[in-house]
Amino acid sequence: MTAQMEILCIGNELLIGKTLNTNAHWLAKRTTILGITVKRITVISDDTKEIARALQETLQRKPRFIITTGGLGPTFDDKTLEGIAKGLNRKLEVNPKALKMVKEKYETYLKQGKIGKIELTPARVKMATLPKNTEPLHNPVGTAPGMMTDFKGTLIAALPGVPPEMEAIFDESLVPILKREAGKQAFFESSIYADRIMESNLAPLIDQAMRDNPHVYIKSHVYVKTDPQTEGGKPHIELHFSTTAENRKTAEKRLNKTTAQLSELVQKNGGKTRAVEKAGKQE
Amino acid sequence: MTAQMEILCIGNELLIGKTLNTNAHWLAKRTTILGITVKRITVISDDTKEIARALQETLQRKPRFIITTGGLGPTFDDKTLEGIAKGLNRKLEVNPKALKMVKEKYETYLKQGKIGKIELTPARVKMATLPKNTEPLHNPVGTAPGMMTDFKGTLIAALPGVPPEMEAIFDESLVPILKREAGKQAFFESSIYADRIMESNLAPLIDQAMRDNPHVYIKSHVYVKTDPQTEGGKPHIELHFSTTAENRKTAEKRLNKTTAQLSELVQKNGGKTRAVEKAGKQE
Repeated sequence: MTAQMEILCIGNELLIGKTLNTNAHWLAKRTTILGITVKRITVISDDTKEIARALQETLQRKPRFIITTGGLGPTFDDKTLEGIAKGLNRKLEVNPKALKMVKEKYETYLKQGKIGKIELTPARVKMATLPKNTEPLHNPVGTAPGMMTDFKGTLIAALPGVPPEMEAIFDESLVPILKREAGKQAFFESSIYADRIMESNLAPLIDQAMRDNPHVYIKSHVYVKTDPQTEGGKPHIELHFSTTAENRKTAEKRLNKTTAQLSELVQKNGGKTRAVEKAGKQE
Repeated sequence: MTAQMEILCIGNELLIGKTLNTNAHWLAKRTTILGITVKRITVISDDTKEIARALQETLQRKPRFIITTGGLGPTFDDKTLEGIAKGLNRKLEVNPKALKMVKEKYETYLKQGKIGKIELTPARVKMATLPKNTEPLHNPVGTAPGMMTDFKGTLIAALPGVPPEMEAIFDESLVPILKREAGKQAFFESSIYADRIMESNLAPLIDQAMRDNPHVYIKSHVYVKTDPQTEGGKPHIELHFSTTAENRKTAEKRLNKTTAQLSELVQKNGGKTRAVEKAGKQE
């Protein structure tokens, strides 16, 4: 079984439908490709108690990794570190390594003439105030460091909500760890389109193909475009095949065999299939 | 306090980063506008046990509403109804009203010449197999009915994952219920941009404006565009103001007062503000 991750997205803007959660999508895609299974994504508000509660609930499910996004900045509504401290029952304290990271950022801004003098205001020191026994993560893009800590076998990492910052810290600090954990396991996928057949008629065919190919997961996706009738109209059905394997050769063999079998079944039942993309690791 | 909702999105495609969760975004926006607070969004896999477990965890938090999306179709991976039945400890049974809805869809397809005959295959009957004591919800767009039931004061509604179907059932069957629950409460918001000031310098100003305007919530959002440096570079900061009120007049008065005060504070501290949009109910 592959290692499991849960993603915890913190931000009222996600709960009021102001911001589309592209961070969760980006993280889920990257993590899956690396061979780690994303088990759950939870979105919660900028509320210390709620963050602590959700973290504790997540820890009870014992995933190998928890990644949080959002709430690391200098403003009052950035409550992630406070929430994590509460959730882990650890004190908050100014982390000297994190403070050095923050200072160095402002020194750079000073040199670049972007600020007139360096003042470590409370709002700036806040970004370096981490739960006890945690490691700050270097932020190559913005000011607020990320944070990482271990709790009873679960690695918790906190990343900012600003996408370029979140992505940069993930790539720099977390990808090497996730790769090590995944070992040779990687995720492979492919898709074909099925036309002239209803999803309800596809159902037993998918069942059969999955029974004969136990390592491949098949999922049908209905896309409704111009014609609003999903079934009976002209829906657009994608058949998505995925597998986790130690190498591309094994994965492609499995995916190709399953695709060929299901295509044949669809055709026997009056449908048509057409290629979308070749099997392979997503980029 | 406004009534609370939790959204439960079911689908492996969301956890592998294949599909961006626009359903949660759409539902969160619509629900917020109606005056209901979305407290949490949870994304889980197409797994009966996982659905049952997540539903039970959600019920323990006692929200007034739970809306699930995805997993109502005819294929094997559509496990939401099975998961809800397990989570509520209810039996699954063919629901006569739901079966009638499904039959009527195929009768329409037959009349339209889209199918040759009506066969209620197991895959089709599956869409009408609901947990005991639940109400099917008419699907104006696709074939699979939605489902609604009450559990100890929480209204649980299951909607399909195909966006036009999900949206149509929400608008037709749930909006009237949510409106009744919200009463006169509605959500109002406005935004301004702040330039030439760092987020860390904005922090104490926001604190002050929030202290003086306890009914308004202010959140700063940093957008990093061409310049990758969030602070010190040319970040784009949005100040977002929101409030829940019984009428537009009260809401606008609050938002305008707070915006004016914070704008003045920003200007006093060397920054600039500019308008983005007028206060008002989102459409």
